[in-house]
Amino acid sequence: MTQLLNLFDYEQAAQEVMAAGAYAYYAGGVTDNITLRDNRAAFERIRLRPRMLMGIDAVSLETTIQGEQMAMPVMIAPTAVNRLAHPEAELGVARAAQGAGITQVLSTFSTTAVEDVVAAGHRTWFQLYMAYNREIVERMLERAESADCSAIVLTVDLPVAGLRENLNRVGFTFPDVLARPHIDEFGIDLSGGWGVFVRDHTKHNLSWDDVRWLQEQTRLPVWLKGILRDDDARRAVDAGVQGIIVSNHGGRQLDTAIATIDALPAIADAVGDQIEILMDGGVRRGVDVVKALALGAQAVLIGRPPLWGLAVGGGAGVAHVLEMLRFEIENALYLCGCATIADVDRSLVC
Amino acid sequence: MTQLLNLFDYEQAAQEVMAAGAYAYYAGGVTDNITLRDNRAAFERIRLRPRMLMGIDAVSLETTIQGEQMAMPVMIAPTAVNRLAHPEAELGVARAAQGAGITQVLSTFSTTAVEDVVAAGHRTWFQLYMAYNREIVERMLERAESADCSAIVLTVDLPVAGLRENLNRVGFTFPDVLARPHIDEFGIDLSGGWGVFVRDHTKHNLSWDDVRWLQEQTRLPVWLKGILRDDDARRAVDAGVQGIIVSNHGGRQLDTAIATIDALPAIADAVGDQIEILMDGGVRRGVDVVKALALGAQAVLIGRPPLWGLAVGGGAGVAHVLEMLRFEIENALYLCGCATIADVDRSLVC
Amino acid sequence: MTQLLNLFDYEQAAQEVMAAGAYAYYAGGVTDNITLRDNRAAFERIRLRPRMLMGIDAVSLETTIQGEQMAMPVMIAPTAVNRLAHPEAELGVARAAQGAGITQVLSTFSTTAVEDVVAAGHRTWFQLYMAYNREIVERMLERAESADCSAIVLTVDLPVAGLRENLNRVGFTFPDVLARPHIDEFGIDLSGGWGVFVRDHTKHNLSWDDVRWLQEQTRLPVWLKGILRDDDARRAVDAGVQGIIVSNHGGRQLDTAIATIDALPAIADAVGDQIEILMDGGVRRGVDVVKALALGAQAVLIGRPPLWGLAVGGGAGVAHVLEMLRFEIENALYLCGCATIADVDRSLVC
Amino acid sequence: MTQLLNLFDYEQAAQEVMAAGAYAYYAGGVTDNITLRDNRAAFERIRLRPRMLMGIDAVSLETTIQGEQMAMPVMIAPTAVNRLAHPEAELGVARAAQGAGITQVLSTFSTTAVEDVVAAGHRTWFQLYMAYNREIVERMLERAESADCSAIVLTVDLPVAGLRENLNRVGFTFPDVLARPHIDEFGIDLSGGWGVFVRDHTKHNLSWDDVRWLQEQTRLPVWLKGILRDDDARRAVDAGVQGIIVSNHGGRQLDTAIATIDALPAIADAVGDQIEILMDGGVRRGVDVVKALALGAQAVLIGRPPLWGLAVGGGAGVAHVLEMLRFEIENALYLCGCATIADVDRSLVC
Repeated sequence: MTQLLNLFDYEQAAQEVMAAGAYAYYAGGVTDNITLRDNRAAFERIRLRPRMLMGIDAVSLETTIQGEQMAMPVMIAPTAVNRLAHPEAELGVARAAQGAGITQVLSTFSTTAVEDVVAAGHRTWFQLYMAYNREIVERMLERAESADCSAIVLTVDLPVAGLRENLNRVGFTFPDVLARPHIDEFGIDLSGGWGVFVRDHTKHNLSWDDVRWLQEQTRLPVWLKGILRDDDARRAVDAGVQGIIVSNHGGRQLDTAIATIDALPAIADAVGDQIEILMDGGVRRGVDVVKALALGAQAVLIGRPPLWGLAVGGGAGVAHVLEMLRFEIENALYLCGCATIADVDRSLVC
Repeated sequence: MTQLLNLFDYEQAAQEVMAAGAYAYYAGGVTDNITLRDNRAAFERIRLRPRMLMGIDAVSLETTIQGEQMAMPVMIAPTAVNRLAHPEAELGVARAAQGAGITQVLSTFSTTAVEDVVAAGHRTWFQLYMAYNREIVERMLERAESADCSAIVLTVDLPVAGLRENLNRVGFTFPDVLARPHIDEFGIDLSGGWGVFVRDHTKHNLSWDDVRWLQEQTRLPVWLKGILRDDDARRAVDAGVQGIIVSNHGGRQLDTAIATIDALPAIADAVGDQIEILMDGGVRRGVDVVKALALGAQAVLIGRPPLWGLAVGGGAGVAHVLEMLRFEIENALYLCGCATIADVDRSLVC
Repeated sequence: MTQLLNLFDYEQAAQEVMAAGAYAYYAGGVTDNITLRDNRAAFERIRLRPRMLMGIDAVSLETTIQGEQMAMPVMIAPTAVNRLAHPEAELGVARAAQGAGITQVLSTFSTTAVEDVVAAGHRTWFQLYMAYNREIVERMLERAESADCSAIVLTVDLPVAGLRENLNRVGFTFPDVLARPHIDEFGIDLSGGWGVFVRDHTKHNLSWDDVRWLQEQTRLPVWLKGILRDDDARRAVDAGVQGIIVSNHGGRQLDTAIATIDALPAIADAVGDQIEILMDGGVRRGVDVVKALALGAQAVLIGRPPLWGLAVGGGAGVAHVLEMLRFEIENALYLCGCATIADVDRSLVC
Repeated sequence: MTQLLNLFDYEQAAQEVMAAGAYAYYAGGVTDNITLRDNRAAFERIRLRPRMLMGIDAVSLETTIQGEQMAMPVMIAPTAVNRLAHPEAELGVARAAQGAGITQVLSTFSTTAVEDVVAAGHRTWFQLYMAYNREIVERMLERAESADCSAIVLTVDLPVAGLRENLNRVGFTFPDVLARPHIDEFGIDLSGGWGVFVRDHTKHNLSWDDVRWLQEQTRLPVWLKGILRDDDARRAVDAGVQGIIVSNHGGRQLDTAIATIDALPAIADAVGDQIEILMDGGVRRGVDVVKALALGAQAVLIGRPPLWGLAVGGGAGVAHVLEMLRFEIENALYLCGCATIADVDRSLVC
């Protein structure tokens, strides 16, 4: 096996150990993969303008999101069916997140019960696809609350499923053997695959009214994941949500959608002082995190890299991924002349 | 055969089943193919800024062009000698267009009589090369009118034939066996090939006076196909035509001509409120259609993709191509937060 | 042999028939060939915005430079030792230029006497490297005048020779057997190669004073070849020369010098109404000529393409190259809606 | 062996003769090598606008930095452990620099004693990593002063070591057999490698106070190496240092840091009239030096090229590298119409 020195190495190693279909399910985007690639390319186009001689005794990566302390400005993005990667599944991720002191956003499509994840993790937020059946949503919220999740993340960019052509090519469907406790309890049949599930069970006509309804159903703070425009960000402020996640669903929904790091600055300019802003999409290096912070995010989420860690080494692999990223961020902050997350400003990028 | 999941797949599959010369005739551009490639690349450079949470119950692709209802903002562009691709030829295309509820623009160089096409299709417009011999033009108009075509599309970008070097390389000429009813009735000899035909029979000094003359000869609305400049678009308004088609002839006339999607916005800004605007060139994905609408077109035309469908599967292949494109547009509209064609605005692109 | 459909084909065919050293001498640039490639790439980056329906009865390529009529806005650039390519050498080129009705700029380094070239050609201008020895210059001017050349083209971008690394790699030096009548009559030894010749015999400290001196020595109009800046163009106006040739010596002098078509607009803006402007560098297609005209040149010069024609087919090859280019320009003008050279305006490009 | 015509050739030849680890140590950057490549690409993106007919009798490359005359605007950048490349090591470089009449900046990590280097070289500046132990710094300064170094260059961009992943991949560590006189006299253990050395011995919290302290400890002028921002350059002016070196440590510290030639203009605009400015990073051609001068540097430093020269031919190889670069700069100045370094102005680039 190649030396695992960074998050790219982990993806390569994961591809070697995973079934082709499972790898394709995690790695792929939609249609021509233009947004998938651009999420990454956009980070690489941005240049850093580091400050020197700042006399930094120690770098602190600590930050606070919705009042919750995090050891670094990185969270685990919600990803489906982690058991495809490794039997430790979401629990392995939770243990790694616990070790790293960061929050995990658990997917509705988790293959581990939220109660177990919360017990093992540092902090857990629950990602929600809004179901047609409001009772299902109420039950999910109730369970997330009882389990002591500390936020609800509503995915807003999935009125319909994106065109995952690569899954058709490899012939991937979810293996029957995988339990998905938050789906299965409602007797939902997943044999039709992801697109059929989205069509039949997730509310395609999701609206700002649903956001307001959701907020009334739960005492937990609500986040909207999938915002790419400044006007939508302003509407999120009006709706009173806790925060937004600038996301294009990892390039898996609308191809040629703007890269998230390119969408971020206008959103931060519009609402950065009124609401909390996270972002995901293409984060693979410590310098990417610094760029996201400089352009207005308070933290980033990483989706695929923990899965590659999981596939390669279970929870320990995820832990290694998080340690490498933490080390890279620390390195980047030192080299940029920033002692704390708050020291990162817009002038660092060009 | 590869899975046929999108319009690119159809081109590949068509190349496998077609004679090299016929494929080259359809696929090629002129000289260095810079415009041919740029038509496509320009679409891929544009980024979408989708709106979320628009509460869309259902997406409607319906639109109206010159008062005629279309099931989606897509039309069949005029392309010559479809019989090269498949014996069903323009009739197969017509049946698919009928199934899809869209308009077919029939080429002067059709290998099927317009009367048969109109009978089989949804709606048929007739594309015209202005002949030197005005009687030929009058006869063509008369026949198009009698056959119940609902518009005349005058191709204005062909004073001379473009430099189809690839045809010289493969040695392609029109097969003698193909009847071209709208040419053959005038006893025109096509053995010299496309360039000789254009030189000898199409009016090289076509002018705005010809446009006005043409309008006087027909009760049908007249469209100009091949406009790339805003000042020409203004002259089209002055001439009183029904609409214009922003086109560079699929990259087959003037190499390094501006990509159509790049030419569109200035034209839409200049005349978008005075005249109807269509565009063609490089449309292969649902998101391309959304971008064209956002930048000021009311619909797009597709030329080569129906030919690939025809070559692969006759009219059924064309139908599949249209279904796939329709599905992609619908998907893109949902994901962009647009319930109707009218909801697509300029702010969706950047 | 491949079909010879365009000027690129001719280069390929020439490479097949020429000695590697001779091909390298003609084809190469300096050091990293960045300007060599950019001359071409810059043309390909420019887009055309063609006008339609201009009612053009016939296109005329005729133009007038310094009061001399030319059949098209193309001239033969001065290139050294054409006998390397073919025994017909500069005489073959002259006959082709005569056939095409265009002017040939004969190089000081011609392997054919100017008198013979003038006799065979349409019109001949004489290119001059300013020698240290003013008597040599006076003799050259005298001979050019007596031979009925109609202009002197002073190369101004050669204070020292560019770094032709590729010649070192192939070990190319001028073959001894080649007579160079305009050099040899002064007993100049060329065995040291091009760089040594330039160092020992061409005036490295060429100045505007030399330009004025030169104009006093000859009754012929004087052109400056190698101008790339608008301020230098203004100085050329002040010096009272006939015109300037925007040139970077075909990418053979200063690597990373600006591409000529990129340098042209600022120069044309500065002096276009006061002095005549030609350009060379990377012209291979009819559309390139249209772009050069649109951006302010009155004509272009082509250097390498006639050499490829010569190498492949002697004077007949050059004639074919000129015919192809003429045909392409005519085609481009028709397609751009321009009946004459004067109709080409800046708005055609973007 | 390939012909050695330029600095790129030397790198290739060096790679052939060097141990893989040593080559990797010199050649590599950090993580994805984006800045490493961009340092070079940025130079290649810049275009020159040469002036003609300037009547230059002779080009002089002489310049003055901190009142010291240099034969050309090029200095030897500090690089560690030159003995890895060749037994002549820093002494071979010194002799070549002496022959070329230029200044060598000797690294703290020299494998040759500064006294020997000063004796052999033209002029020597001493590069300093600020140690935690101030006595070490004082001793180094004392030794540099006694040895007659004429400046101290404080490296300011190394609060922590960059992520040299390529060294992990080749498994490179400093060979034990190499003496490093300026490190070894303090009994510092280098067996942990570069990263450990930096962590344990160089002051990670370097600040502007340290700069002021350093200036108080030495009568030598102090330069800051590693400035990339205009505001930092202004602080350098406030601190009263002699000058700054715009540098990103050859792409070896912060990946995606701005290319130095791209960072230079804003810095020159801010402080060019108040302080001396040098730059390094990607300089390989004479035209690069001209571009750096045009954009505000008074001279450049080259780091890797002398090492390639050393590896290939000892001090004689370095001398050849310097001769080639000198020849290229001279050539570029002639071709740009500049008789002296002072004639190079901003208008030469675009």
